[in-house]
Amino acid sequence: MDSDFGIPRELSPLQQLRSQYDPELPPCLQGTTVRVEFGDGTTVAEASDSHIIARAFPHTLGQPLAHFLREAAKVSDAHIITQLPSIRVGIVFCGRQAPGGHNVIWGLFEALKVHNANSTLIGFLGGSEGLFAQKTLEITDDILQTYKNQGGYDLLGRTKDQIRTTEQVNAALKACTDLKLDGLVIIGGVTSNTDAAHLAEFFAEAKCSTKVVGVPVTTNGDLKNQFVEANVGFDTICKVNSQLISNACTDALSAEKYYYFIRLMGRKHSHVALECTLQSHPNMVILGEEVAASKLTIFDISKQICDAVQARAGQDKNHGVILIPEGIIESIPEVYALLKEIHGLLREGVAADKISTQLSPWSSALFEFLPPFIKKQLLLHPESDDSAQLSQIETEKLLAYLVETEMNKRLKEGTYKGKKFNAICHFFGYQARGSLPSKFDCDYAYAMMTVKNWSQNASSTSTSIGRPAIHPAMVDLKGKAYELLRQNADKFLMEDLYRNPGPLQYDGPGADAKAVSLCVEDQDYMGRIKKLQEYLDQVRTIVKPGCSQDVLKAALSVMASVTDVLTTISSSSNGGQQFA
Amino acid sequence: MDSDFGIPRELSPLQQLRSQYDPELPPCLQGTTVRVEFGDGTTVAEASDSHIIARAFPHTLGQPLAHFLREAAKVSDAHIITQLPSIRVGIVFCGRQAPGGHNVIWGLFEALKVHNANSTLIGFLGGSEGLFAQKTLEITDDILQTYKNQGGYDLLGRTKDQIRTTEQVNAALKACTDLKLDGLVIIGGVTSNTDAAHLAEFFAEAKCSTKVVGVPVTTNGDLKNQFVEANVGFDTICKVNSQLISNACTDALSAEKYYYFIRLMGRKHSHVALECTLQSHPNMVILGEEVAASKLTIFDISKQICDAVQARAGQDKNHGVILIPEGIIESIPEVYALLKEIHGLLREGVAADKISTQLSPWSSALFEFLPPFIKKQLLLHPESDDSAQLSQIETEKLLAYLVETEMNKRLKEGTYKGKKFNAICHFFGYQARGSLPSKFDCDYAYAMMTVKNWSQNASSTSTSIGRPAIHPAMVDLKGKAYELLRQNADKFLMEDLYRNPGPLQYDGPGADAKAVSLCVEDQDYMGRIKKLQEYLDQVRTIVKPGCSQDVLKAALSVMASVTDVLTTISSSSNGGQQFA
Repeated sequence: MDSDFGIPRELSPLQQLRSQYDPELPPCLQGTTVRVEFGDGTTVAEASDSHIIARAFPHTLGQPLAHFLREAAKVSDAHIITQLPSIRVGIVFCGRQAPGGHNVIWGLFEALKVHNANSTLIGFLGGSEGLFAQKTLEITDDILQTYKNQGGYDLLGRTKDQIRTTEQVNAALKACTDLKLDGLVIIGGVTSNTDAAHLAEFFAEAKCSTKVVGVPVTTNGDLKNQFVEANVGFDTICKVNSQLISNACTDALSAEKYYYFIRLMGRKHSHVALECTLQSHPNMVILGEEVAASKLTIFDISKQICDAVQARAGQDKNHGVILIPEGIIESIPEVYALLKEIHGLLREGVAADKISTQLSPWSSALFEFLPPFIKKQLLLHPESDDSAQLSQIETEKLLAYLVETEMNKRLKEGTYKGKKFNAICHFFGYQARGSLPSKFDCDYAYAMMTVKNWSQNASSTSTSIGRPAIHPAMVDLKGKAYELLRQNADKFLMEDLYRNPGPLQYDGPGADAKAVSLCVEDQDYMGRIKKLQEYLDQVRTIVKPGCSQDVLKAALSVMASVTDVLTTISSSSNGGQQFA
Repeated sequence: MDSDFGIPRELSPLQQLRSQYDPELPPCLQGTTVRVEFGDGTTVAEASDSHIIARAFPHTLGQPLAHFLREAAKVSDAHIITQLPSIRVGIVFCGRQAPGGHNVIWGLFEALKVHNANSTLIGFLGGSEGLFAQKTLEITDDILQTYKNQGGYDLLGRTKDQIRTTEQVNAALKACTDLKLDGLVIIGGVTSNTDAAHLAEFFAEAKCSTKVVGVPVTTNGDLKNQFVEANVGFDTICKVNSQLISNACTDALSAEKYYYFIRLMGRKHSHVALECTLQSHPNMVILGEEVAASKLTIFDISKQICDAVQARAGQDKNHGVILIPEGIIESIPEVYALLKEIHGLLREGVAADKISTQLSPWSSALFEFLPPFIKKQLLLHPESDDSAQLSQIETEKLLAYLVETEMNKRLKEGTYKGKKFNAICHFFGYQARGSLPSKFDCDYAYAMMTVKNWSQNASSTSTSIGRPAIHPAMVDLKGKAYELLRQNADKFLMEDLYRNPGPLQYDGPGADAKAVSLCVEDQDYMGRIKKLQEYLDQVRTIVKPGCSQDVLKAALSVMASVTDVLTTISSSSNGGQQFA
């Protein structure tokens, strides 16, 4: 099998065209000269965690933020690097595959070569296990030919997500030392970037000169902060899923007799479901964050859907589309408690078929109530991050089952007078994960290799005391994207304002579309910093020797109050200053 | 709800662009003059059925085939029509929704108006039930605006597929008479076109002047013959499904631990599965026609997959993608026998939970062996065409279950030494059916309204004696498309030659791609007739008064043998001449 990695693939005409696409580089990464401005030192997201983080990352926390500058930028204390020594860098796919992963490799390869033709990029074959076993493939332009702008992780393959145990960490150290690597790039999601942060600290402590860099590539959209506005892969996944959701909406509207219950892959949080809702306008979405905040039980959720079905039937609408994030099952308080009990018993070695007898009375009552198919799925062993096997738990079928039971009851009692309730269930995820990446993800991934910020956004989690981990970002219920959803939820529910973004395009309208949540959240932090710098430059140009007294006087007065106000704001908000 | 039909919809940027696309018309349909050449009378597909068909269709069988001609065509006895009276035509969506349906309406509307601005197109709201109840909407260009080149059937909606009972047929007759329709266009698949043929005969017998026209719009690709090379919708469905199958292939290759079992919607025959295999190159496909021809049992099929999994593990490949047409379950002899028994008992009124006790010993043994989830699905009532509810029977899960059981056994016995077998199951169909139509389907559907051949390819079926029905076309196991599959099957199985056609494009490479099976089958019958006519024209131009004696002599000699040979062939093959 190893011999298959990196071999040329047969490409379809569209794939061929895509392989010839040159991603756009942001101005600050163009050319052979590197200009860096160093900012404040890194801090932590939650001030209360700072002592734990500081203790866990004594060698790596607090390093200054690096800000790459475009050629035209006027920053007096910028570090300008024109000659770079040749370096050796290793790269490994660690997390689940996401569209754009290949472009991270390609972009890094080009960047290394443009700065020094003797630099080397070494891919590890078969993920972290290839890293431990030192199975390598030197990346060349030939090898990259049929992988540029293509989906999947098949150029190098991947195995487990984990670089965590003493044995694994030592094997990684040995590989980096043996191969004389100056850098190790780990491509992955929340778990892999947590591992990367710990590995960096471990290497620093061991005085190993290999720098560890984590690159946020994950379809879940949950690894973000003010510096990392989106993850590579999220844009593509949402576009492919939205295409399919919209097709289901059109189908529902044409057949007028089905309710589609669509579960979406995306782990614990509901970013994918929120974005797809904003793109496709299905009738309803139930976000895990809403369920957790309102402490909704499984019966509350089911009743909410039943009432919606009944209200729509009152308008002679007997069809609809409902989105359900896969993580919702862990957001429902009583189901979460049940899962924790099951996982605890499994960890104690209790056999799956004996667990039902050892549950607490509450959990036992809930468990016995559930239909057999879901019982079996809840009894599965948890994942390496302690969460349930979310992709295997058919929450959409459970909800469809509960809603059907209730609607039949209402029909019998005469409180519901619509047509017989019919549900069709789907799980969308696997079929999107291997997609050709969107233009956005191609460009973003290609430029991504410079994000040296390996997510020190670490804070302790309750489940693994003593080992700080990156918190996946949750949907912000006070954010603009959620607000946009709330403003439209009633109309989406009743009026069938279905919108079809269509299949992913590489030409024409839609090809350059960005995620709706990204646009409305106005999260372009670095862009706004640039804008500010432009204003400062403009003022400097206007108020130069030779300008009128009036202009100088006005400028001085205004800038005095500006600096005053900003100083006051900065000092009062300093405690809450976030790094990542 | 009725008030929602025909209302303007909010369109995404891509949908807006598509709504402005002008489909291409073939030259013979351009302009305001109609040129028709009448060919031989219609005959039947199977000579042995001719007496049954002739008895069932005394008024409509044997009418001449109409061949529309381009302006430049030199056909001496062509009927040339320059002025058409204003006519009133009704149109109704009858079958399951397929991409392109809206363009049939649009194309018909434009054609009516171009020939006489006073002609009227009347849409029936809510399918055949709207026809019976005379719920109508006059089609205007305004109404069409947001439905041009869009998916779904939501402009008019649809209900049941059926116009069959005496009550239904009489209601249709009354509607056409009351509304003074010159024509009634029925958009649908095999069932609806069978109904259309019977309705035409019924109208002719009742001396009703409304002409009935069936238009083959179905995602299954099973309504074809030498005149109808493809169905509207098939191209789009295969492209959307192939995109998703290819994504699963990329995912399998990246994760290297899953076998994807993908069931494809498509009714009894395996056209969709064959076409998707030729587009995406998954490792394996099991066609219903192969299973039926080789009389494979469910255990044969499961063993075939197990052996493939084992062979691939021998090459260190522990992943793969296997396509399963939904109709396969009815092609397996012993399962088909079981289904027939179940349906018979259901028809006798036996309750589903009592059926297992009343089966024959053979069927009972098979039934008891099956896992509970599939038992429940096999007990569902049959569809109106007597087939099982194919979309509800999870054959992919049954096969995955059988294969997993067998692979675990082999692993235990030591005959299989690969990794633990892991299957992920999918059913693709609903999420493709509502897609924006491909360029091919947009053009084809727009021009389709002229196919007046309402599929008299009728022959009696064993299941409904006395009522001839259209046979859905099966995959031709002697055809070129199947040959192409067989030639590559071993390579597809072992070498992972996955090919990704990518998401449906409307610009650039792939936008004009045709179905592979359509290209290799060389089914362009009308195109080849045109080509022949060009040759004849060329000869006529060369051998005109003034040409040399030598040329004339050679031409005479050659054409004498050509006509000789063709006369001989024609007379000997006359018995097998097919109409439709």
